[in-house]
Amino acid sequence: MHKLIILSEYEKKYQALIEKAQLPNLQITGLLANDVDIAIGEPTRIKAALAYLPALKWAQSLWAGVEPLLDPAPRSGRDYVLTNARGVFGGLMSEYVLGYLLAHERRILQMAEDQKNKRWNDSDTGTLRGKTIGLLGVGSIGADVARTAKFFGMTVRGYTFSSEASSDVDRYYHGNDLLEFAKGLDYLVNILPNTKDTHKIINADLLAALPPHALVINVGRGPAVDEAALLEALSRQKVAGAVLDVYEKEPLPQDHPFWSTPNLHMTFHTAALSLPEDLTRIFIENYNLYNEGKPLKYQVDFEKGY
Amino acid sequence: MHKLIILSEYEKKYQALIEKAQLPNLQITGLLANDVDIAIGEPTRIKAALAYLPALKWAQSLWAGVEPLLDPAPRSGRDYVLTNARGVFGGLMSEYVLGYLLAHERRILQMAEDQKNKRWNDSDTGTLRGKTIGLLGVGSIGADVARTAKFFGMTVRGYTFSSEASSDVDRYYHGNDLLEFAKGLDYLVNILPNTKDTHKIINADLLAALPPHALVINVGRGPAVDEAALLEALSRQKVAGAVLDVYEKEPLPQDHPFWSTPNLHMTFHTAALSLPEDLTRIFIENYNLYNEGKPLKYQVDFEKGY
Repeated sequence: MHKLIILSEYEKKYQALIEKAQLPNLQITGLLANDVDIAIGEPTRIKAALAYLPALKWAQSLWAGVEPLLDPAPRSGRDYVLTNARGVFGGLMSEYVLGYLLAHERRILQMAEDQKNKRWNDSDTGTLRGKTIGLLGVGSIGADVARTAKFFGMTVRGYTFSSEASSDVDRYYHGNDLLEFAKGLDYLVNILPNTKDTHKIINADLLAALPPHALVINVGRGPAVDEAALLEALSRQKVAGAVLDVYEKEPLPQDHPFWSTPNLHMTFHTAALSLPEDLTRIFIENYNLYNEGKPLKYQVDFEKGY
Repeated sequence: MHKLIILSEYEKKYQALIEKAQLPNLQITGLLANDVDIAIGEPTRIKAALAYLPALKWAQSLWAGVEPLLDPAPRSGRDYVLTNARGVFGGLMSEYVLGYLLAHERRILQMAEDQKNKRWNDSDTGTLRGKTIGLLGVGSIGADVARTAKFFGMTVRGYTFSSEASSDVDRYYHGNDLLEFAKGLDYLVNILPNTKDTHKIINADLLAALPPHALVINVGRGPAVDEAALLEALSRQKVAGAVLDVYEKEPLPQDHPFWSTPNLHMTFHTAALSLPEDLTRIFIENYNLYNEGKPLKYQVDFEKGY
């Protein structure tokens, strides 16, 4: 018999969904106990519980990003398998990115201003067709964004550590080719996980390499952006605009200049929600593998950080 | 030798593009003359010139809608072939529709308000996946919108006179099934041309058949909407919102209530621009057919009105 603890803000919801699946050999417990071998939850909550789960063999994160469980690792030896949420955020992230690209090209916010001012402004609007989008990071989310960008007739560049798995990327860039990758982009979208290699990857040099009409979107993790450099680039019109869903510190402090920066559009870590139905599907799939002693899907590499 | 007159606001642009194509047996003239057999231009300008073009055999409209040349027909006998612009607006229209659907689901305008008020509002946003979109009219533009809607995981309904050409439409409706078509829609999009059959097709009955969370988009022609009925439906929350690109009278009069109706988002007949490069491509294709005495593409049926 396996013992599962649910360490989530939405514990009851997950408990109901998992119980409904009637998984074999599985008991759900509400107690941090010596014999709990499985945990599912938000990485922050799993982190806080790790010291009290000596028998833990497998933890399923409800998020894609698992930074709280990594560097420095809260549990020595990394003696459990950590799996994260993959393949469920791509659609929502693509909707977010495309929504903001279209809002930018179609001047949706300005149209609302024109309406408010009773101004019949029939000047030209832009199109996505023929534009070039650059994706920082092409994992399962990036591949979905790439596929969507191709659907709308864009050219797609991808910057990755080494992988070239998505065939919707027209050209891949790696390593020192970052500034070459940025040259001539209409849109730059960061989807990278938070690791030491991605820290402030969107810095003054990268921003200076972009054309002044470029739009920067960050749906990855906040620390990927050098926030001071972005503010500088926006105020000096080195880039046309930015759309941010994630920040170095969340919620963003009230005195942060982002709140009132023109051409910077904020959302509130809402680009892709973790839907319990989707996440439970991942858990069930992995539980069946676990119960049969097979390797789990979506395993996090503690060295790489994703 | 054929003689062409360009009757367009962008005469010089079209002249340069057509001259560059070096079409055989073609002379461009600036004069309304007895021997002009071909005209290209906006329907309003073609209409004004028709009486002075007795030898006209073919007119190529730069717009999809050709109402000014129809009812009542300014030239008796309809003794010339009228072709319109098709296959060039679908991509732009799809971008417009998807842009506003995503802005609606992702609350892009409200997010901008939240930012202005320094409110970290991480409440849930919506998604297109699983939603049902209903297209009033599925010609070449509608087919493109249908294909895009399928790409984002929507169910697609189509209401047409009789055609069922697009395989991206999950279910077709015709004739008296209009209210059945409307039932349960998340989004209603009008793309119909302006004919006597489409006049005020979006009326109080149709609006009442929609669920209260429905969003209504009109990118077809203004007269398709009963404007008073739409205002009533919006003010009584019978529908959630509307996005209008076209109006009964354009530009919209300054005292029209649409300007200041909450949940009504206006654009200014800007959903799909006629790009001279696209339209010249259509003209060249048709000119080559004309010069060889073959039937032209995109012929308007004067009875149907499109």
